Formats: sequence, structure tokens, C-alpha cells
Amino acid sequence: MSKYKKSRLAPETFPSLPPIAGFDMAVAEAGVRYTGRTDLWVLRGQAGTALAGVYTKNNMPGAPIVWSRKALVAGNKYERDVQLVVVNSGTANVFTGEAGKKAVLETASGAAAAFGGAVNTVQIASTGVIGEPLDASKVTAQFSDMNKRMDSGGWAEAARAIMTTDTYAKGATAVADIAGVKVTLNGIAKGSGMIAPDMATMLAYVATDASLPREVLQELLSEMTKTTFNSITVDSDTSTSDTLLLLASGAAGGPEIEDASDPRLKDFRAKLHDVLLDLALQIVRDGEGATKFIQINVTGAQSDDSAHRIGLALANSPLVKTAIAGEDANWGRIVMAVGKCGEPADRDKLSIRFGDHVVAKNGFVAASYKEVDGANYMKRQDIVLSVDIGLGLGEAVVYTCDLTHGYIDINADYRS
Amino acid sequence: MSKYKKSRLAPETFPSLPPIAGFDMAVAEAGVRYTGRTDLWVLRGQAGTALAGVYTKNNMPGAPIVWSRKALVAGNKYERDVQLVVVNSGTANVFTGEAGKKAVLETASGAAAAFGGAVNTVQIASTGVIGEPLDASKVTAQFSDMNKRMDSGGWAEAARAIMTTDTYAKGATAVADIAGVKVTLNGIAKGSGMIAPDMATMLAYVATDASLPREVLQELLSEMTKTTFNSITVDSDTSTSDTLLLLASGAAGGPEIEDASDPRLKDFRAKLHDVLLDLALQIVRDGEGATKFIQINVTGAQSDDSAHRIGLALANSPLVKTAIAGEDANWGRIVMAVGKCGEPADRDKLSIRFGDHVVAKNGFVAASYKEVDGANYMKRQDIVLSVDIGLGLGEAVVYTCDLTHGYIDINADYRS
Repeated sequence: MSKYKKSRLAPETFPSLPPIAGFDMAVAEAGVRYTGRTDLWVLRGQAGTALAGVYTKNNMPGAPIVWSRKALVAGNKYERDVQLVVVNSGTANVFTGEAGKKAVLETASGAAAAFGGAVNTVQIASTGVIGEPLDASKVTAQFSDMNKRMDSGGWAEAARAIMTTDTYAKGATAVADIAGVKVTLNGIAKGSGMIAPDMATMLAYVATDASLPREVLQELLSEMTKTTFNSITVDSDTSTSDTLLLLASGAAGGPEIEDASDPRLKDFRAKLHDVLLDLALQIVRDGEGATKFIQINVTGAQSDDSAHRIGLALANSPLVKTAIAGEDANWGRIVMAVGKCGEPADRDKLSIRFGDHVVAKNGFVAASYKEVDGANYMKRQDIVLSVDIGLGLGEAVVYTCDLTHGYIDINADYRS
Repeated sequence: MSKYKKSRLAPETFPSLPPIAGFDMAVAEAGVRYTGRTDLWVLRGQAGTALAGVYTKNNMPGAPIVWSRKALVAGNKYERDVQLVVVNSGTANVFTGEAGKKAVLETASGAAAAFGGAVNTVQIASTGVIGEPLDASKVTAQFSDMNKRMDSGGWAEAARAIMTTDTYAKGATAVADIAGVKVTLNGIAKGSGMIAPDMATMLAYVATDASLPREVLQELLSEMTKTTFNSITVDSDTSTSDTLLLLASGAAGGPEIEDASDPRLKDFRAKLHDVLLDLALQIVRDGEGATKFIQINVTGAQSDDSAHRIGLALANSPLVKTAIAGEDANWGRIVMAVGKCGEPADRDKLSIRFGDHVVAKNGFVAASYKEVDGANYMKRQDIVLSVDIGLGLGEAVVYTCDLTHGYIDINADYRS
């Protein structure tokens, strides 16, 4: 799919994603930019499907984001309608002016005509090069044929159709219990660069047959975004197209639940978080050029938010990331990165661990630390860095990858 | 000096720096970490030398920074004394606990004993690896011999002694007129990585024979840091050891000036700014792995501070920096970086230029823009990127370099 070699951090296989009752879909080769591969996906949720969404905070959003935000709100009025999601890869349709708006409207109109539903509730996402207009006719020309092929299976094909520089397709699935009713969750995602909160630069779609109102879905999604997609970073750059949608068809039936804090959602919450985190971490593991997966645990900060910011400062530091790429247990750069971010921290209370090895504490290298232990630990593929700030109870976990020659290779010639 | 090839962006030669009346100096091979090169510099200003300083804002400052900040204040009480500056390369003496404090005190005591002056006004800086203690005896062992060799010349040798990963020595000189009195300014600097505000990660020393009180020097230095050393970035990482000192021996004599806004300082201000900016840009031109020098002009922002932050977001974006490394006129990434930093901006008012080529305006690619013009422009060694936000009168200029394989090479094996 990608012209780059599959990431060495990739999962061995794409998981088996079962059909989800109430949804069907199709993919196509629209030829937006790529040739010889699919680049278009349409997902349809049956009438009554509820939808929640989180979008990029980048101030320069693409036309699809502007449209989809409105569509999310408009959806309130069309709850009994079919819900459509249209995603193309190859062009992001960002910074494309009036032409961009027109392309989105054409796509939505064409989709509603072909697949049913209201034009102004169609969710649209485009991913790829910024600044090049999308020829919507290439997309809409596929709809009639796709409508004939709509099928309840095809999640793996969908995950492949939305890829750009991804080196593997990303999916996750789980089964949850809501008051004795078994529901299934499927998720797919794409993303490998321009990945940083808020929110992590990517597209992700999670569908379930649970019967939950949009307000509950939105609350769950917004809450869980923080510890999943907003806790990953590849390169500190935030895309103009980030989209995370959660759709619930209601086909599994079950009790009416009107509050996200309802205790009957305990298992569903846990499984939804699992799926979101799994997808988020798969994006990190496909980080452009990544050779190491890095988990950063921050404890003892003045607040959880402060811990989160310290974690991201570490995760985005080019010097920390290159040291790890070089398998160099260069904890001095960790000290630097904690210090540079402006969050409350005290040199003489800071402690640092690589895995279980205490490297530094009380403003100095730990007496027990041996360079050879650090050096050996850094040879691992998955690295856990822990810093304790020693000031309070704030905690956060952040995930990233190393910065390597591969990142430069990919990004110095992306458009060529 | 460095094991890396001289930066292709380097000035052709080191400028000829004349002696400055009232100062003498020496360098030595103390063997702190390096062998076969100098790694120690002592600068002495005659009795009455005034001093101003700006230090890193990193929360994890090294022992030399903690000491030197106090020494700057203590200097108020010892204005009639000799002023000493001691700089070593090889070890940063950062995160070295009690041992670090002890090393600093030993160095200051040894210096005052050998070269004169008060112990607690000695300015000390160390640059190199973080987390390794400094063996102060290696430094102090050199002082007696250095004292015999103290000389008014030697600025080029000093610039070389303080280098770490620098691929060339950095110096600048200027002559200014203060009310008919000719004064000279010399500056030297080191730095090529862990370079970001505040302040740009580096050591820089400027000496002049002008007769100016420390309050005036401090005001000038603090004011000019913003548009020089705080407007450069190589990798967004801020060192724990940044130091910028301005020393004035008073040997040139001249009128008593007590106010930094005195109109008689007009020429001195301009020349001091020239020297500071020249040194700052030499650091960017030696940015680790740099192949392109990038000037970013931001206009039309809501305030100067906002423009500065937008400029830095562009200058620190890995995707912008790798695109330039790849000579790719990928203006979409510029849109992304303006949008991601959270500063007020409006997609439909943004315009972007590469040199004189208008690339994008009004939320779309400019009708007059030809890809071939952008592609040709990107082949230049010095690139000027201009973005106009279209909202207000805020302006800033920021300087950086591209992100290349060379950066990874240097930083993935710095300690090896």
C-alpha cells in the first residue's frame, strides 16, 4: 500500500473484525490521487444511528471539517434518518477556498442521493496533501456502483482505503456487555505523521450496535479522547483534518441509558477505551520512520494537566527522540526536556527510570545506576520512560516513537 | 574541531577580532572530556568592568547557572574589582547535585586566587554532556600557567575552546561611536543543537571598551535578546546552560551615560544589535545537520508576541523543516503549522510567500503561483518564508534551519 516498508513495530496481523448489525459499507478506486488502490470508503448506519464526533483543533481546518462539525449538530434534527460517512484518501481538501466548500457539498449531495439520508448530516473526511482541490466528480461517480456493493463486511478493506503514508491498516474490535446485552465494537484508523494532540492527527471510526443516545456517546468520546488520541504524538505537528467518530446503530437493542455515568456502562466504557487506545497506539507504532515505541509515565506533577504537558514535552523533544533512536540512555536530555516546558518542577526532586532501572534521583545520577543497564535496556523495541516530578499527585501517560532517518526520508519527499 | 564536516552554511572565514582595551584572556587544554583540543577559556576584565547577563529559562539549570546568576547580583558590591569569566567545554555540570555545586565553588576560588578579583563574582559556564560531574581540579590545575599567558589577543582561540558539536568557531566585531568616542565590540559564541528560546541554547560573550554602567548594559542586553538569541531555533529544545554576557571595561573612556535610552547610544545600540544578531545567526547556520538557512517573516498578527509565537511554530515544525530539507515547496505544511499553534489566525485571510513568490492567499493557492517557481526557489541555500496573518499589525522575524539526516546522525550518537 505505502511505498515505505511496513513498520517494524506493526502488529503481526490485522484483527478479524466481524460485521456490526445496523451498518453496511463499500470501498472504491476513485483515483483521487493514487492509482491501483482503493481511496474511497462509504459507511452507512441504519435509520436511528446515533453519532458523536471530535475534530481537529487546528485553526486552519479543511472544508470537510467545517462541514462535518455542522453536520454533527444538524444530525440532532434527523435522528430517524440513515447516517452516512464518506472518507477519501489522497487529497485533504484543506486550504482549497470556495472550490473546497463546493467539493464537500457535491460529495454530500451525491452520497445522500445514492445511499439515502439527509444531505446536511453526511460526515465527510479527506486525508492527504494539503492545498490541492478535490475533484468531487471522481468521488460521486463511484457512488452508484458502491451502493450496489454495500455489505455488512469489509472493515479490513475500509481500513486500507483510508491509508496515506500508513504502512499497515489499523483495526480493533471488542465485545462488551450492557445490562446483559452483548454489543460489539469495531474501530479502524489511519495516521502515521502530522500526529500530535489536540487531537492526534488521524482519522478514526468506531461503530457499535449498542443502543445509546448521541449525548452519551459524545460524553464518552470526549472524555476518552484525552487518555487515548490526545496522549499520542509522533512529530508535534497537528493535522488540519483530524476526525474521530463514534457511531451506534442501536441494532443490539437493550435498556434505555441516558447518562454516561450509568453503572450499566462500566464494561462498555472499558471496552470502548480499549478500542480507542488500541487504535491510537497503532498510529504511534506506524509513526513515520519509527523503530521504537515509547511509553512515558509522568507521576508526581502538580496536576494531571501539568503531567500531560510534561509528558508531551518529553515526547516531542527531538533530542530525546533521537537519543532513543540511537539507543543512547541519555537521561540528561530528559532532564532538559522536563525543564524546558515551563511546568512546575524541581531539579532536586526529579527522578527518572528506564523500565525498572532508577537512573537519576535527588538531582544526581542514582548511586545504583550502571550505564551498562541503561544501554542494554535501550536496545529493546518498546521503551518505558518514567519521570517522577516529586511535587504532587498529577499523573499522565503519553505515547510516542523515536525520530529516525526514516522520518526524514518520508517527509523530505512526501509530494514527489 | 568537531568530528562533523563544517556546515555548508558557515561563513567563509572567522572575522579578525582586535584586542579590546581592558581585557585579557587565555585558553588551555584541561582535558575535561576532549583530548587534543582546548576546552577552557578565562576572560579577565580590568578593575571597574561592568557586566550584564541573561541566562537560560530552563527549570533544570546547571550548577554554573545557579552560581552565575548569584554572581551577577553580587557583582554590584564589587564594582571596583577585576571581573572574571571561566568557561569549559566537554561537560555541562548539569544535574550533578552536590558535586556540581562543589565543582563550581572550587573553580571560582581557584580563578580568583590565580587571576585576582572576588570569588563570588566569577562568572562560570560549562557546556557539554549533562549529568556527568565536572572534575574541577582539571580546570584549576591550568590556572597558574594560564595566568602567565594572559594576553589581550586570542579571541579566535577562545571561540574554538568553547565549542562542542559546533563545526566552526563563531565571532563578530564592530566599531561604534558614543558621543565622538570610538569603542570596539567583540563577540564570540558557541552552539549548534539544543537551540531554542528562551533563550537560544548557547553561550555568547560580548566585550567592549565602552564606559557604560551595568544597569545600562543589562537593559540593552535584555531588550536585544528578544530579536536576536530568542528569535532563533534549531530544534525547539532549550539547554540547561544558556548564557549571554556583555562586559564593558570602560577603557575607552567617554561621557557618563546613565540611561539606556540616551540618544548618544544610538550607534552603539545598532552595532551591539548587529553583533548579537550576527552571532545568533551563526549559531543557526551551524544548526546540527543544517543544509538550509531559513528566515521566517510574520506580519499581520494580532500582536508582536503572537507573531513571534507563530514564527516559532513554523520554525519548530518537523514537517515544515523536512519539507525545506527536501526542497519541497510544500506550503500546505505552513498552513498546518500556523493553524496548530493556537494563535489568532483566519484561514481565509492568510497569505504565504516564498521569497517574492506569492504562493497562497485568501484561503487558496494564488492564481499567479506556478509550482515550478516554488520548486526553483526551494533550491536556494537561504530561504525566506513570509506569512501574513491579515488580522493586525503584529510582526516578528524568526530564524531557523532545516531538519535533515545530519541532525539524526549527530544526535543519535552524541555521547558515543
